[in-house]
Amino acid sequence: MNSNVNETPEKPTQRTVFFVSDATAITAETLANAVLAQFHGLKYLRYRMPFVNTEEKAKAAALRINEVGKENGVRPIVFSTLVAGSLASTFNEYCNAFVIELFRSFVGPLERELGVPSDHSVGKSHEIGDQERYNRRIDAINYTLAHDDGQTNKGLEDADVVLVGVSRSGKTPTSLYLAMQYGIKAANYPLIPEDFERGELPPALENCKDKIFGLSISPKRLSEIRGERRPNSKYASIENCEYEVEEAQRMMDREGIKYLSSTSKSIEEISATILLELKINIDPHMSM
Amino acid sequence: MNSNVNETPEKPTQRTVFFVSDATAITAETLANAVLAQFHGLKYLRYRMPFVNTEEKAKAAALRINEVGKENGVRPIVFSTLVAGSLASTFNEYCNAFVIELFRSFVGPLERELGVPSDHSVGKSHEIGDQERYNRRIDAINYTLAHDDGQTNKGLEDADVVLVGVSRSGKTPTSLYLAMQYGIKAANYPLIPEDFERGELPPALENCKDKIFGLSISPKRLSEIRGERRPNSKYASIENCEYEVEEAQRMMDREGIKYLSSTSKSIEEISATILLELKINIDPHMSM
Repeated sequence: MNSNVNETPEKPTQRTVFFVSDATAITAETLANAVLAQFHGLKYLRYRMPFVNTEEKAKAAALRINEVGKENGVRPIVFSTLVAGSLASTFNEYCNAFVIELFRSFVGPLERELGVPSDHSVGKSHEIGDQERYNRRIDAINYTLAHDDGQTNKGLEDADVVLVGVSRSGKTPTSLYLAMQYGIKAANYPLIPEDFERGELPPALENCKDKIFGLSISPKRLSEIRGERRPNSKYASIENCEYEVEEAQRMMDREGIKYLSSTSKSIEEISATILLELKINIDPHMSM
Repeated sequence: MNSNVNETPEKPTQRTVFFVSDATAITAETLANAVLAQFHGLKYLRYRMPFVNTEEKAKAAALRINEVGKENGVRPIVFSTLVAGSLASTFNEYCNAFVIELFRSFVGPLERELGVPSDHSVGKSHEIGDQERYNRRIDAINYTLAHDDGQTNKGLEDADVVLVGVSRSGKTPTSLYLAMQYGIKAANYPLIPEDFERGELPPALENCKDKIFGLSISPKRLSEIRGERRPNSKYASIENCEYEVEEAQRMMDREGIKYLSSTSKSIEEISATILLELKINIDPHMSM
């Protein structure tokens, strides 16, 4: 094949991305996903490299990344949360990649702002850290599991949030995300045809109205989701889904319950909205 | 009170920190927690400011932060994931704080590396994005809930990970974290005295040995955790906890099952270790 001198060199449409960390690599991955989401149209193959916590491992990680770069014919992209110091130096010395370093960019300026030196200690981000706070988070997960789908009314007064909505509107994953990410005790309670017929909220919810938040969903999407579980059922039929969604919204409107549609929102977006609407956006316990 | 000219000005020991974002603020919070974890000994009061997605809101957020700074007598620290553009400009114009901007630091250099301009689009990080991938994640959460605590053996062959361990060793929160964060189908299965007496793994696990990972725990910690649920029970007694932990470890050793102690590890650390040990550290589906 003759090469044409006027031809633009082909721009790679897929890049390999590594998350390199001395601990879990969760921060590196979150950061990378946020930044890469700004570049539409490219494909990324992602590798996690957690627990790169010795110089030997730092060198081995760098060499492995170099190999992948050679195979790909284009240098990999690395998001590194190695703390500045010998681990990061060793890694950078050997690594032939485009390296984005979280701590190099931010820790220095912050040392000057805070007027104290940083610890240069590895593995801090996702350690247990404050045991009391960590225990609260695990307690929140256990609470949320015990109060999933209206399983029990016992202890409902301890909830930080009570999610309501028709079956399969997204209450369970959202509750679990609230507990896991924010340490929030999130009960959830289904709104069922019996409630609509009675024209009243489930009686158990009367005393926690200020903590209730509703999830709605488009009837079409609800019918799809229910249909995966129970194909061709009345439960999943579009007519029934339309009826339930409409009645649930009518009830929430009447009771002054705020709600949003989960149809095209992620559990992260739903959760952040709930915290904002219920004004749970400060965490005074989150000091270290 | 007379001031002493030789006295060092008092360094504030508490700082107020804001997470400012045009969407969920989850990335900003993760970034902030990672960076601040490098500064031991200070206390932080943290506020989330999600959905700062209009210029009006950007200005209001900045003014609110300034107010807090005045009250505190020291300027707040802001971790911002506002995308470069008019939102960020408006915010920076009004805000009198120490602002750390994620995108300003990394997106420019990455544009040059990738050879494409960034999208400057707001709210991308935690959107549903790839619907198929998001659905897989929700499916993983549902799978994990259905396969919690050995509830069913049906579909165990579909698990990516099967966690085993004695009751209250941390299997449930870890399984849920694996599902939520990584979209991994994580079943979990208790090891109970009947298994130890029989001297064999639960029969349901015979066919998924390559996916099994074990959690152990110190008997003392286990006894504390169980004691909260069932005080003064044989179940929670230190003798029984010692017996169960020892037998479980003996069984895992004999069966060649890798395990770690959850005693002083967070669910994030346990999860990252499991992925590394079971070699599930690449996600080929994670392209956008």
